Amino acid sequence: MEYLYDAWYVAAMSSEFPDDGIFAREFLGVGVAMFRQADGTIAAVRDQCPHRFAPLSRGKCIGDTIECKYHGLRFNGLGECVLNPHGDVIPPNAHIRHFPVEERFGLVWIWMGDPDRADRRKIPDLEFLQQSDYRRTIFNYIFAEYRSDILVDNLVDLSHADYLHVGTFSGGPGEDTQLKVWEEGDAVVAERVQIRAPTPPIAGFLGPYTDSTFLLKWQPGNVLSYSIRMVSSDPALHGEELQQFAHIVTPANHERTHYFMAVTRPLNGRDPPIEARAANQRRVVSEEDGPMLMAVHQQMDGRELMSLNPLVLPTDAASLRIRRVIKRLKKRDSADLVPLS
Amino acid sequence: MEYLYDAWYVAAMSSEFPDDGIFAREFLGVGVAMFRQADGTIAAVRDQCPHRFAPLSRGKCIGDTIECKYHGLRFNGLGECVLNPHGDVIPPNAHIRHFPVEERFGLVWIWMGDPDRADRRKIPDLEFLQQSDYRRTIFNYIFAEYRSDILVDNLVDLSHADYLHVGTFSGGPGEDTQLKVWEEGDAVVAERVQIRAPTPPIAGFLGPYTDSTFLLKWQPGNVLSYSIRMVSSDPALHGEELQQFAHIVTPANHERTHYFMAVTRPLNGRDPPIEARAANQRRVVSEEDGPMLMAVHQQMDGRELMSLNPLVLPTDAASLRIRRVIKRLKKRDSADLVPLS
Amino acid sequence: MEYLYDAWYVAAMSSEFPDDGIFAREFLGVGVAMFRQADGTIAAVRDQCPHRFAPLSRGKCIGDTIECKYHGLRFNGLGECVLNPHGDVIPPNAHIRHFPVEERFGLVWIWMGDPDRADRRKIPDLEFLQQSDYRRTIFNYIFAEYRSDILVDNLVDLSHADYLHVGTFSGGPGEDTQLKVWEEGDAVVAERVQIRAPTPPIAGFLGPYTDSTFLLKWQPGNVLSYSIRMVSSDPALHGEELQQFAHIVTPANHERTHYFMAVTRPLNGRDPPIEARAANQRRVVSEEDGPMLMAVHQQMDGRELMSLNPLVLPTDAASLRIRRVIKRLKKRDSADLVPLS
Repeated sequence: MEYLYDAWYVAAMSSEFPDDGIFAREFLGVGVAMFRQADGTIAAVRDQCPHRFAPLSRGKCIGDTIECKYHGLRFNGLGECVLNPHGDVIPPNAHIRHFPVEERFGLVWIWMGDPDRADRRKIPDLEFLQQSDYRRTIFNYIFAEYRSDILVDNLVDLSHADYLHVGTFSGGPGEDTQLKVWEEGDAVVAERVQIRAPTPPIAGFLGPYTDSTFLLKWQPGNVLSYSIRMVSSDPALHGEELQQFAHIVTPANHERTHYFMAVTRPLNGRDPPIEARAANQRRVVSEEDGPMLMAVHQQMDGRELMSLNPLVLPTDAASLRIRRVIKRLKKRDSADLVPLS
Repeated sequence: MEYLYDAWYVAAMSSEFPDDGIFAREFLGVGVAMFRQADGTIAAVRDQCPHRFAPLSRGKCIGDTIECKYHGLRFNGLGECVLNPHGDVIPPNAHIRHFPVEERFGLVWIWMGDPDRADRRKIPDLEFLQQSDYRRTIFNYIFAEYRSDILVDNLVDLSHADYLHVGTFSGGPGEDTQLKVWEEGDAVVAERVQIRAPTPPIAGFLGPYTDSTFLLKWQPGNVLSYSIRMVSSDPALHGEELQQFAHIVTPANHERTHYFMAVTRPLNGRDPPIEARAANQRRVVSEEDGPMLMAVHQQMDGRELMSLNPLVLPTDAASLRIRRVIKRLKKRDSADLVPLS
Repeated sequence: MEYLYDAWYVAAMSSEFPDDGIFAREFLGVGVAMFRQADGTIAAVRDQCPHRFAPLSRGKCIGDTIECKYHGLRFNGLGECVLNPHGDVIPPNAHIRHFPVEERFGLVWIWMGDPDRADRRKIPDLEFLQQSDYRRTIFNYIFAEYRSDILVDNLVDLSHADYLHVGTFSGGPGEDTQLKVWEEGDAVVAERVQIRAPTPPIAGFLGPYTDSTFLLKWQPGNVLSYSIRMVSSDPALHGEELQQFAHIVTPANHERTHYFMAVTRPLNGRDPPIEARAANQRRVVSEEDGPMLMAVHQQMDGRELMSLNPLVLPTDAASLRIRRVIKRLKKRDSADLVPLS
């Protein structure tokens, strides 16, 4: 699994980020130390002192700098060494990588590629999650013990729900299912229409069978936004169930994954509360997807999907198209063009 | 340690095999999902869906098929995909390996090589274990955390009993010991005669010293059958102790081993009950052999015995001869001649 | 990290060595079984039987020999097989490595190189630790879960104390610090003079600021002896604090380290008791150095320091000089010249 560096990844939920002190997390195999600066913005630097490789996150913030706990070197939010207590000069190689960070939509976004290429306009638009007087959104986070590409593949092929999540997210397979997949710029969009499937528990008011339209959009940084519309298969039964949510997948390394999820609803007085739905989503993801994806992770044993010569089904269309987009983006990815020092 | 594929291995005790549902176990580094079919026979297929590599054993049996829990593909006992819910056709590469299975002597046997070569007449004859109105046999199973070749070497060199098992299986070394080792077809047979050894606790009625004859036979698949006859070294003391048992060693992978054992006796009214002996055997194997073999496993660190240039003693004769037989059998082993797909 | 074999390493504290039975420990990646002989000296042999690689330390001492628990071979303190119960002769290759051992200064010293080169006069002189009517020394031992070179680097660059141990060993950085490093034969000596540093808690009677002189000496085998003299920065305040101690670092393997430490004081009626100081040293080393060095160990991930292109500071002078001495010594190290069998 190759990393795409030139993308905005979600590093944290704003709600979990501390006002004071250092927040450390690994992204794309690199340890990152983050801290909130006096002006409210977040700085992010490599979590490793260049002297003896101590994790800087074991140190402390002094103003808008981090002091290394081991020998006292200090670094600012651009990774520049600003104090060397053990010499009259600051050696020219006494700097560390820094990573552009932006806080938006209740999430902390990080750019792991060349900072000069970090275009904040490319942060995926998740405006539909924006908290307001008219909208409520609940976030959840799971540190997942499986590879990120296995999770992305799971999230873009919703056919698994009819087997792995039957009785929770799904009522079972439908009589007919149509899938369309296409690209929109660097995004991949899939529309799945399912006809006359057993109604999942959440929408029992629609009668025993429902027709559904699932629309999902993948964007670089593995930002997946979904909207689902369910109506009764019985023309006599009116009403509909609408859902909007997001799954966001940030590689910690080749073995582990930061998995963020969000459910949202307008505060229009008609939709049911989403607290229970968010908790249920987290539970199903942990208890139903989790063991399966960990098992797949073990079976794949670090090898690339295509190197294993998998059986390819029509439902893999989005998964394969995303691989093609990533391959195209990798051709101009900063990590493959410039040394990231 | 190279695997010999063209052999019948013991996969399970019949007593532990479920009537319903899937029984999963690893053999020769391959995960296998087994289930009992409507006609009472057992089917065995590779425990990995060819689509996204989910373990099939997480799914369920539907008739004589397994349904994958991840995306619902179904496979029969020959590993053929018989249902693809996500397309109009079943892709030609939608099949998995299957493994011939036979139930005999209270054990479930599996053939991990080319199914076309599975000759059921080659299942080792363990008729002496067959339960009947005249015979009682007790089986035990241990999942052993050491390599299978280390266990086979242990089981064919009984001299270790006089040091590792003194006070349990053995009373200590004898005044003289003679060992003969020979081949019978693909089997290796060893006869060990021990003169005037301290009597082990189990045979105290034979007086302080005993003469023993141990006859052991190794067959491909690491099936080891034993018969032991002990008499008093004192010509004035009559009586004898006879024991018949089996140890069977199936590699799970290069690090772990399925260890089956059986003790048996005729129900002729004279032999003592064997329940206690079977429990004692399991305890000694776990508490005395187990820690030693795990330590040897660690010391050998994945390397072949002969590559470590070991000190070779006359007591290693059976161990070395078995290696020669396996080397000979490997020349016509299906895994080395045909792709096992 | 390459091992230097031709050096005397500390294997154990005399106080932890048993009078009877086998004491097993790993040095330089080699398991060693040690036992005290009838004449009071300690023998040390490789902890692995040459027959089937059983750890000899699972066996027992019989006179001045070890009997292997697996098949009963016996070895003397020179690693010679003196009994083979399974044949009429002792095969010529039935021997194992032995290691010269010497007990001195309350410590058990071992030579892991060619025994013919073991010159007992080269055991570092730690006479200043020698227990007597006039001196009391307390030893401690930690099995450290980090590489030995990381610990040596830590111990020879005392500047870390002003950050990692502020509030325990140190009161913080001083106004000025001078460091001199030089070689004395195969030893490396560092003198560190610190002017007007906040007084550490242990020496509060010297007023708020102190001037200190630290003298440390590294010798092959990673034997580090220290003497520290602190006086008040205020000329009006008399008195001084003197400390003498040792840290000794024996590689268990490339991942783990035996860490011995000693504090000592003359019994002249004026110095404070050292029991509390020894306990405090062990606690600080465990709780402050331990987590940091484990973190550095993980960050370095098995790679050599210099291959990571570290930022080099003037405070690294001793660390770098020790590397040069080891490189020089390696040119005539027995492990690189003769096979150690």
